[in-house]
Amino acid sequence: MLDFNFSIPTKVLFGAGRLDELKREPLPGKFALVVISDGTTVKKSGCLDRVLAALKHQGIEYLIFDKVRSNPSKASVMEAAQIARDNFCDFVIGVGGSSAIDAAKGAALMARNPGDLWDYIVTGSGKGKAVKNHALPIIAVITTSGSGTEVNPWLDVTEENLHEKIGFGVPSTFPTLSIVDPELVLTVPSFLTAVQGFDAFFHAAEGFIAKSATPISEAFSLQVIRLISKNLPQAVHDGSDIEARTNIALAGLLSGMVQVTSSCTSEHSMEHAMSAFHPELPHGAGMLMISEAYFSFFAKYVPDRFIKMAHMMGETTDGLPEEEKPYTFVRALQKLKKKCGVDGLKMSDYGIRDDEMEALARNAHKTMSNLFAMDRYTLSLQENMDIFKASYR
Amino acid sequence: MLDFNFSIPTKVLFGAGRLDELKREPLPGKFALVVISDGTTVKKSGCLDRVLAALKHQGIEYLIFDKVRSNPSKASVMEAAQIARDNFCDFVIGVGGSSAIDAAKGAALMARNPGDLWDYIVTGSGKGKAVKNHALPIIAVITTSGSGTEVNPWLDVTEENLHEKIGFGVPSTFPTLSIVDPELVLTVPSFLTAVQGFDAFFHAAEGFIAKSATPISEAFSLQVIRLISKNLPQAVHDGSDIEARTNIALAGLLSGMVQVTSSCTSEHSMEHAMSAFHPELPHGAGMLMISEAYFSFFAKYVPDRFIKMAHMMGETTDGLPEEEKPYTFVRALQKLKKKCGVDGLKMSDYGIRDDEMEALARNAHKTMSNLFAMDRYTLSLQENMDIFKASYR
Repeated sequence: MLDFNFSIPTKVLFGAGRLDELKREPLPGKFALVVISDGTTVKKSGCLDRVLAALKHQGIEYLIFDKVRSNPSKASVMEAAQIARDNFCDFVIGVGGSSAIDAAKGAALMARNPGDLWDYIVTGSGKGKAVKNHALPIIAVITTSGSGTEVNPWLDVTEENLHEKIGFGVPSTFPTLSIVDPELVLTVPSFLTAVQGFDAFFHAAEGFIAKSATPISEAFSLQVIRLISKNLPQAVHDGSDIEARTNIALAGLLSGMVQVTSSCTSEHSMEHAMSAFHPELPHGAGMLMISEAYFSFFAKYVPDRFIKMAHMMGETTDGLPEEEKPYTFVRALQKLKKKCGVDGLKMSDYGIRDDEMEALARNAHKTMSNLFAMDRYTLSLQENMDIFKASYR
Repeated sequence: MLDFNFSIPTKVLFGAGRLDELKREPLPGKFALVVISDGTTVKKSGCLDRVLAALKHQGIEYLIFDKVRSNPSKASVMEAAQIARDNFCDFVIGVGGSSAIDAAKGAALMARNPGDLWDYIVTGSGKGKAVKNHALPIIAVITTSGSGTEVNPWLDVTEENLHEKIGFGVPSTFPTLSIVDPELVLTVPSFLTAVQGFDAFFHAAEGFIAKSATPISEAFSLQVIRLISKNLPQAVHDGSDIEARTNIALAGLLSGMVQVTSSCTSEHSMEHAMSAFHPELPHGAGMLMISEAYFSFFAKYVPDRFIKMAHMMGETTDGLPEEEKPYTFVRALQKLKKKCGVDGLKMSDYGIRDDEMEALARNAHKTMSNLFAMDRYTLSLQENMDIFKASYR
């Protein structure tokens, strides 16, 4: 019988130009830690200046932490947390892509809790202690579309020494306020637009085939699959198309809601293993590399759901033999990848060697075992390894 | 361009038997005001005892306010608020149907704010003052399916002296926690099951044709229309069918989310006028009486959306002349009413006279003008009156 919890406490301002409203929105305190990446994007685009001007307008003082790299490290999160604590920051505001937002979440949490982030992580070598105190309030100004981190409590952090990239979150790591302004995404280059858009697609598809799917998550998932199929090629090929950008930003937001109302599956665990050993690999790119083999494997276990997803991508399954129908989704996915120019991604281009497949599978099983439990068929280590091997190029 | 706010801060525990978890859920304080209706339902069913036992289990003391009648009056809300204030209650818990929950919301708000509820109401003769303080935290244990009040900030209160039934809400009148346990709905009689289920249906349909619809509200709306069409006749005819009850409870919940992510339209304003003069009229019954004329009027203004709703009800529009297609929805609605035994509701059975139509139209326009602004075509007073007249039996 149907049974679920629903809780998405984040207030979202969605729409082109909405960043302007930051200067009027009630903010939770008078001293902020602003967390951004170690790159120059939000500086060059003027986005950071607009955020800082909004804070000043509200009489809020701030410090800036600008050392977050892609696939944020635990070390940088702990450093930001220390700064927030030592300076009595009232809240943390992440400005940028998912790395900046996730680091802001981690800093907000560890500013209010003793010890090390890995004391609280529940999988891998994490000690699984109960989190004692609420995180500082978190504000997100997201400048990419696809991670969904703007509307869920999850933060992905990498412990480089242990080769562990783990997703974690508690109720207080939901952002209290998120601004999703598609104008901020206009400058994202086409390759990143594609891999991040596919991240949203995979959240939706995994959430749809997961054990944890509910009628609420399903409504979100199908919208995401439709929006990405229809708009991602255009957003990739003409990044200045604000309508396409808006639809992809919406898909990203809804995919974050899927991650709350359902769950990702083992595909995400497998990608985390890849990024744990190769932190320069974009998360969406890693999933693209394994997605054909992954979804081909699961098609036979949840055929009805694969058929529904194919239909949402505009495909028909009429006239096909019954056992062929679910694979229509896999073929539609391949077509969509091609249209977005990301059908040729190779593990070897990111330095992954073919003798790593066993280590990747073991790492996925160990560090993100929780998502394997969401699959409707439990992958063995060997099957997991076989999916990696089939994906290797 | 697409532009919306999203905020549903309520935590929902949904599923048969979930009321048991109230004894373990963190609650916001040590002294509660429990608000119930003036009837005996929650007492006889044992629901109230289970809530009180859960509070005791958590060491929480409480007072009970049991004077809320259907279409709760402002006077009873103010009385409950005074009790909460005089006794320093930490939070308010509504147990029952929408009347109990709405009264709990009003009591929680007015316990923390000076003056009269009508000082803050923004339409009708309300003074529209800004609400100064957050309401006390609100917990909802809902025992009916359809109002959606368990997951939105809206409270419908009637000022009897002025014949004004007005919907109102602020961010702090969202319940912080709602328990939606379909087992609690098993004893609702079939007539109330039908009219409350249609309340959910109308929230969804109105929200779908409203100006304020967004892709998020649309996903919720279409799910509600599908769930109600498929399950309401069964829930009406066999109230003990927990699967049908669960699906209708889900539809009610999602319809509450439609009221947050989109809005109701003037149909709700029109029904509020009917209930304002005839407080014994169930809200859903009032809407059922005017729904055929109402949706027939709007079909030509939003034909595509009517066709989509008809499809979600399992109808086909293939082969029909283009101008006929949207009316398929109205015919499907009539069929569904009949299946649920509520196609013969008459205004005259509730004491409404045929010379009241102008007063009703004027009242609707005056007291709930805000929802007329959500229509995609602005109804004149005359057109509004004509819909009432066409509905009169």
